[in-house]
Amino acid sequence: MTFQVGIVGASGYGGAELLRLLAGHPQMDPAVVAAHSQAGTPIASLLPHLPGERTFDAVDPAQLAELDLVFLATPHGPALELGATLADVGVRTVDLSAAFRLDAEGFKTWYGEDHPRPDLIPAVYGLPEYARAQVAEATLVANPGCYVVTTLLALLPLTPLVAPGSVVVDGKSGTTGAGRAMKETLHASHVGSSFTAYGAPAHRHTGEIERYLAVHGRDVGAISFTPHLLPIPRGLLITAYAQLQDEVTSEDVQTALRDAYADEPYVEVLPSGTFPVTKAVVGSNACHVSAVVDPRTRRVVVTSVTDNLGKGAASGALQNANLMLGLPETLGVPVVGMYP
Amino acid sequence: MTFQVGIVGASGYGGAELLRLLAGHPQMDPAVVAAHSQAGTPIASLLPHLPGERTFDAVDPAQLAELDLVFLATPHGPALELGATLADVGVRTVDLSAAFRLDAEGFKTWYGEDHPRPDLIPAVYGLPEYARAQVAEATLVANPGCYVVTTLLALLPLTPLVAPGSVVVDGKSGTTGAGRAMKETLHASHVGSSFTAYGAPAHRHTGEIERYLAVHGRDVGAISFTPHLLPIPRGLLITAYAQLQDEVTSEDVQTALRDAYADEPYVEVLPSGTFPVTKAVVGSNACHVSAVVDPRTRRVVVTSVTDNLGKGAASGALQNANLMLGLPETLGVPVVGMYP
Amino acid sequence: MTFQVGIVGASGYGGAELLRLLAGHPQMDPAVVAAHSQAGTPIASLLPHLPGERTFDAVDPAQLAELDLVFLATPHGPALELGATLADVGVRTVDLSAAFRLDAEGFKTWYGEDHPRPDLIPAVYGLPEYARAQVAEATLVANPGCYVVTTLLALLPLTPLVAPGSVVVDGKSGTTGAGRAMKETLHASHVGSSFTAYGAPAHRHTGEIERYLAVHGRDVGAISFTPHLLPIPRGLLITAYAQLQDEVTSEDVQTALRDAYADEPYVEVLPSGTFPVTKAVVGSNACHVSAVVDPRTRRVVVTSVTDNLGKGAASGALQNANLMLGLPETLGVPVVGMYP
Amino acid sequence: MTFQVGIVGASGYGGAELLRLLAGHPQMDPAVVAAHSQAGTPIASLLPHLPGERTFDAVDPAQLAELDLVFLATPHGPALELGATLADVGVRTVDLSAAFRLDAEGFKTWYGEDHPRPDLIPAVYGLPEYARAQVAEATLVANPGCYVVTTLLALLPLTPLVAPGSVVVDGKSGTTGAGRAMKETLHASHVGSSFTAYGAPAHRHTGEIERYLAVHGRDVGAISFTPHLLPIPRGLLITAYAQLQDEVTSEDVQTALRDAYADEPYVEVLPSGTFPVTKAVVGSNACHVSAVVDPRTRRVVVTSVTDNLGKGAASGALQNANLMLGLPETLGVPVVGMYP
Repeated sequence: MTFQVGIVGASGYGGAELLRLLAGHPQMDPAVVAAHSQAGTPIASLLPHLPGERTFDAVDPAQLAELDLVFLATPHGPALELGATLADVGVRTVDLSAAFRLDAEGFKTWYGEDHPRPDLIPAVYGLPEYARAQVAEATLVANPGCYVVTTLLALLPLTPLVAPGSVVVDGKSGTTGAGRAMKETLHASHVGSSFTAYGAPAHRHTGEIERYLAVHGRDVGAISFTPHLLPIPRGLLITAYAQLQDEVTSEDVQTALRDAYADEPYVEVLPSGTFPVTKAVVGSNACHVSAVVDPRTRRVVVTSVTDNLGKGAASGALQNANLMLGLPETLGVPVVGMYP
Repeated sequence: MTFQVGIVGASGYGGAELLRLLAGHPQMDPAVVAAHSQAGTPIASLLPHLPGERTFDAVDPAQLAELDLVFLATPHGPALELGATLADVGVRTVDLSAAFRLDAEGFKTWYGEDHPRPDLIPAVYGLPEYARAQVAEATLVANPGCYVVTTLLALLPLTPLVAPGSVVVDGKSGTTGAGRAMKETLHASHVGSSFTAYGAPAHRHTGEIERYLAVHGRDVGAISFTPHLLPIPRGLLITAYAQLQDEVTSEDVQTALRDAYADEPYVEVLPSGTFPVTKAVVGSNACHVSAVVDPRTRRVVVTSVTDNLGKGAASGALQNANLMLGLPETLGVPVVGMYP
Repeated sequence: MTFQVGIVGASGYGGAELLRLLAGHPQMDPAVVAAHSQAGTPIASLLPHLPGERTFDAVDPAQLAELDLVFLATPHGPALELGATLADVGVRTVDLSAAFRLDAEGFKTWYGEDHPRPDLIPAVYGLPEYARAQVAEATLVANPGCYVVTTLLALLPLTPLVAPGSVVVDGKSGTTGAGRAMKETLHASHVGSSFTAYGAPAHRHTGEIERYLAVHGRDVGAISFTPHLLPIPRGLLITAYAQLQDEVTSEDVQTALRDAYADEPYVEVLPSGTFPVTKAVVGSNACHVSAVVDPRTRRVVVTSVTDNLGKGAASGALQNANLMLGLPETLGVPVVGMYP
Repeated sequence: MTFQVGIVGASGYGGAELLRLLAGHPQMDPAVVAAHSQAGTPIASLLPHLPGERTFDAVDPAQLAELDLVFLATPHGPALELGATLADVGVRTVDLSAAFRLDAEGFKTWYGEDHPRPDLIPAVYGLPEYARAQVAEATLVANPGCYVVTTLLALLPLTPLVAPGSVVVDGKSGTTGAGRAMKETLHASHVGSSFTAYGAPAHRHTGEIERYLAVHGRDVGAISFTPHLLPIPRGLLITAYAQLQDEVTSEDVQTALRDAYADEPYVEVLPSGTFPVTKAVVGSNACHVSAVVDPRTRRVVVTSVTDNLGKGAASGALQNANLMLGLPETLGVPVVGMYP
């Protein structure tokens, strides 16, 4: 059978990637392709990989309520409203924004506003590797942020092994992570052949990382997180540093990682000393992780990569949607990146 | 049913892309993944998008002869030999190299050597848009070159409309088109943030373009072809110029293109004035074409784009293989590129 | 002695590059650094290569009238007005825009408006290689466009050798050529790893190329010109094709180019078969040119490169300013590009 | 007066950049341009920004001994030998390699070999901001490594303020930092649009950072250092994390940085919250530094940028050479980067 699904915010990059993936998905049909400010505009005029005559739909909650599942790929503002509306009528929803990821206190702290629907948060967090059953049962799934999922998959198996307060995460993302809105800092002439940090020391993903390290692993305290902008469209790499607890060996680290992901279709633990490459996962839902231990400092250094529009957005959302609809988890969700 | 296929030259970029595509193909299994000089090497050590323990196989013609179909993704030297061997035993083969594309005279002219098996050339030329039935019946298919297929799809419908001797083709390709072998000119420090022409005025693809314009369209005489190296891994764009014959209008041009490809799954004719974008087709088998007519010079200017590893190599080969095996032509061959 | 100069439009890329070059010029001092819409803004906030406290000045014609020379680096609209004002009071001015390059008829044709001051046009065209004496005497110099100067230096020596009506120019430019204004097509996520044509068949530089081929060489009729956008910030390459007249040999072509530029400090003719590389001239005022002749088609193929912010904008303007102020032409105008 | 200088290893990137800078230096003449394996080869064939007929010289110690100063831009192996030879005859030498930076024990630890001339090490370390007088008097100067100088300038003023054992340095460099030698990992098709870490946890620059933090600041113990490869030719950014000591405030951090560099021509401290951009310093000798303090973790996060061929190689070496020859320190050493 084919499920009728909708995408709201389809003109953004997360939405665009969902459309690409759905074109190859045998059992989901993008019945609604909505973009609030672009309703009526030909899709091809904004998304040249999707030529043809179809236009963006308007956002019509009544129409969305008829669907089997809705992907919200808007900023968190519109998602707060639509997510609540759809939850109230019981429509399965995967929200790619930060609207429903934190609890009320965390949302207030990191987003500076009171959450309008504290009864809905935290929604089920869409990290199947750690919450597969809950996702399968959920009506509303909060899809993780791109930096967050890449960090969590790298660090969650290691939280019992590291010293609280010692975690530093240095993140680097392609430009699509910053969205489609035009900003001086995203002009090709400025980004091209350049590199810079931004948003430190209080990027909003920090709180989400801390929360879900604690929820699915162990509380390791406040972390330092610094994002950087890579001069490439897609691909995200984090380098995480943490002090190992006494007695923990390099073998313990490798074993913890390998054991955690031995049966996971999308998380690959590379041999220590082989460093993950962003381009190996671009276009896919894969996450590659690798760790080295520095005997001089007793720190573990973990690097992990995802496509910021993949595991950290569209393909991760599709993996969750498969689970929610009772489909095979990997159906139409690519595991092999587009290299080179 | 699942067909057992082999790839020879799997460590190169065409082979690597075939492996990626086969991972998503429901009815072909890469039973043999051979790379002559890398036999025994872990695939993941050269192709990080394919992690795991599998190693490259040795090239064993007897083993290949047992398969349903073989992709040759080697340089034309080894392909000449293996292609002949496989043809002699009747194994379906798609050769991505130039070994079997030209006739004996053309091969001698452009490759500077006598063809060892003139009885096999020209093989069926793997351009389904113009030779679908022949491909479906063929044992040996010569897959077109990347510049060539992009030019042919742009110009073939227009050959009756343009003046012989007037065609200029200005090509631009990503670096993967130049192959995996290390050369000074492919060092990242030289290619990065730079752009240059190369190989003019006698690039080997020139003869192939001229030949197949004549075979499937009309002989338009000698063309000028200048390739350039883009500082990106994948994506190819050609800009073709030709003098229109008297009386030919801009409408004639648009009609010719639209009529030629109305039913083609992979060739999209964009409205005049909308210029194809390489990234819209990267990772896919699509070719986007668009033409404008300049009333001041009476020239038509056609631009077209492909992924040089896609329609011009791996996915084009897979489209041909589907036809040869009696499978739906589009099975596992993506039409939507990875944008942005 | 040190000359007091001003830059209007200093927040744009041409202005920014002038500021960089003036920082290394021993005899010009940027007394006025004006940017209409950014007056009062710290320069460093827009141009991070120029840290410090200085702010952009307002555009004050009375203040500009006190200077030894003014660079206009604005769009052609403001330049029309300011250029006329400064010309009326006799202040030496180099205008980087298209405001004063064409004659009244040409301006109307290509810019769609009547020129407000036909008495001032065409101003002296700032191509010292062909008009050194006139530039030295001029009050108002119209600096050539970036595509134009790169094409003229490649083709001017060859106009007597080629067939009228046969010239095709395929241009490729880095993104800074499109200016600082934000546009969807200049978003880093769209430009990155991509390539496309634009603006054909009627880009405004076409008329300027045709005019100055005729003025400084020989009228070769209407040309076809197609610009393309490279995914790099700086660097421009044109590939020009033209039919050789009967009897003209490859040696004639090489001799014509070498003789034209034997004594020129900034134009380098590379051996036939060595193709110019954009990165070899980025950051400099150099133009590298090279030609091959295709015996099959009797076409000459010329490629030439400049930095689109260099010879085609800021450093070319500085070369002109040196001449106008009686300074050594090469003072503070770099000849060596930043490679790799 | 004009000094006669030589470059050994001129075909590499450090040498190439020295040649570019010397072309604009009014008082140094590159009398010898030597490249061992390329002697006799036209310079232009390897370095297209330097067209012309000149060929690389052979490496002739007797000839070098006649010069006023020699730049060694070779790997550390040849530099060990040539540096000693030149030191023995008293020729001023700036060595860009690691041959003379560490003491005997450090060299053995990080380079795995006994130093052949322990009497010469450590040579005067070429960091004028902390050793101006010593450089001016030196015969042999060891120019700092690119990651090292960028880290030292960021952290040296802060060593009294941070907790020993808490320093993490996450480095990112353009590809030219890896040198000209061809390696699979530097192929444009692999590097393009990609990003990866390498060399952790024991990159050789680690020991050099630790040593000179202690020599010119305070010993902060073992650091964690992870280098990464940016898909751009030039530009280097380090992100350093360190735990602040009790009582240290954000103001203390800013004051320490500003005071350290108030009079330095090449080190610019940006306001907290403004993040340095690599492209702002490319082509120059500048280093931009900026720090933020995270009140949640009590860590300072410092980012700093250089051109890896600039302050960390060629222009830094030229700054040292100016001092050694009694010339103004900034003569011919650019402070403004090539942006955008």
